[in-house]
Amino acid sequence: MKITVVKNILEANDRIAEDNRRLFEESGLLVINLMSSPGAGKTSLLEHTIDALSGRLRIGVIEGDIQSSADAERISRKGIQVVQINTDGACHLDGNMVRHALPALTLSDLDLLIVENVGNLVCPAEFKMGEDHKVMILSVTEGDDKPEKYPLMFRESSILLINKIDLLPYVDCNVDKVKEVSLALNPDLKIFEISCKTGEGLDSWTQWLDEQVRTRSRHT
Amino acid sequence: MKITVVKNILEANDRIAEDNRRLFEESGLLVINLMSSPGAGKTSLLEHTIDALSGRLRIGVIEGDIQSSADAERISRKGIQVVQINTDGACHLDGNMVRHALPALTLSDLDLLIVENVGNLVCPAEFKMGEDHKVMILSVTEGDDKPEKYPLMFRESSILLINKIDLLPYVDCNVDKVKEVSLALNPDLKIFEISCKTGEGLDSWTQWLDEQVRTRSRHT
Repeated sequence: MKITVVKNILEANDRIAEDNRRLFEESGLLVINLMSSPGAGKTSLLEHTIDALSGRLRIGVIEGDIQSSADAERISRKGIQVVQINTDGACHLDGNMVRHALPALTLSDLDLLIVENVGNLVCPAEFKMGEDHKVMILSVTEGDDKPEKYPLMFRESSILLINKIDLLPYVDCNVDKVKEVSLALNPDLKIFEISCKTGEGLDSWTQWLDEQVRTRSRHT
Repeated sequence: MKITVVKNILEANDRIAEDNRRLFEESGLLVINLMSSPGAGKTSLLEHTIDALSGRLRIGVIEGDIQSSADAERISRKGIQVVQINTDGACHLDGNMVRHALPALTLSDLDLLIVENVGNLVCPAEFKMGEDHKVMILSVTEGDDKPEKYPLMFRESSILLINKIDLLPYVDCNVDKVKEVSLALNPDLKIFEISCKTGEGLDSWTQWLDEQVRTRSRHT
């Protein structure tokens, strides 16, 4: 009985996500669903990404948080379009929440929409929102056993950003093990090692993102 | 409609949690629900706690993970009673999962049962399991904005352990701000600053735990 309810919710969500996806395609917009544990560096990554691509791409952001608008305020300082979703307790964004946020944005003025999900390594990976790519961050401070313990997000993501590599001298995290187990779960996963603090590795990430937008634009 | 379903699930869970609680009281057992984000240090804290209280308290552990038995294997090396719950995708433990794990333990041989929840700063705080205390860990690497962004767990917990303080020189985390916002949410919250790496602060935590067990034992 419980399984049926969950299945119905996921199927209803998939239909809304498909509607979102059509709208994104009509707008020639690339959409990224950015996910991680709390505090792995999603908002910091956003700030660096917006700075790096400023002048090249028109970026909009949807901020998902259980409550508070602190992240949307941080991002709005960059002078871009941003809208905050408060889930009021829910541990993930879904297609319907994103749909209701879209009228607050002028999609025709954007090349790239990044949706920052609620900080949670589990449920966000289950709910599509019509995105082109799921991108996940793992902080090295979380340890090297996370792909084995939270496999779904690693399976669903196109990109794994291993963040806070500046802290590697001070924590017990075998990055090679993270990569090996992640690639066993998802052989197509692209992995970038980054530090939002020092800026290391961010060029490869923003270059990948820029290429995705340009490929998408040529097709539409 | 959705709200009704959720309410019914929570009410059904509360009834099972009450049954568990009666069983724990009959067994003279103190029960701790240990929660945090992924990688904040729950299993490391457990290892230190078991070592520190070895010979003084008889400790049992229930390990909650989406999949894998890695944590139960780590804990079983301590030679204590341990049982693994795999939630098969679910992002939190609930009263029913704990109830089904209890027959695998000899409760009459235990003074203290610690339940390590799934790594998630959101949903575990919503589901009672019949515990005496919720205890949460926040790693300083997660940043000082977490109480504001994930308030429920801070409200529900008796204890906040601020972990990985050995990393404070290398991360941007204002511990005073964490304390201030946490106490505004929950004035009864006890806060200990700890490092599972250096051992700093762990004595205060294990002393608190020992006192809770002894108080409980005198009452039953």
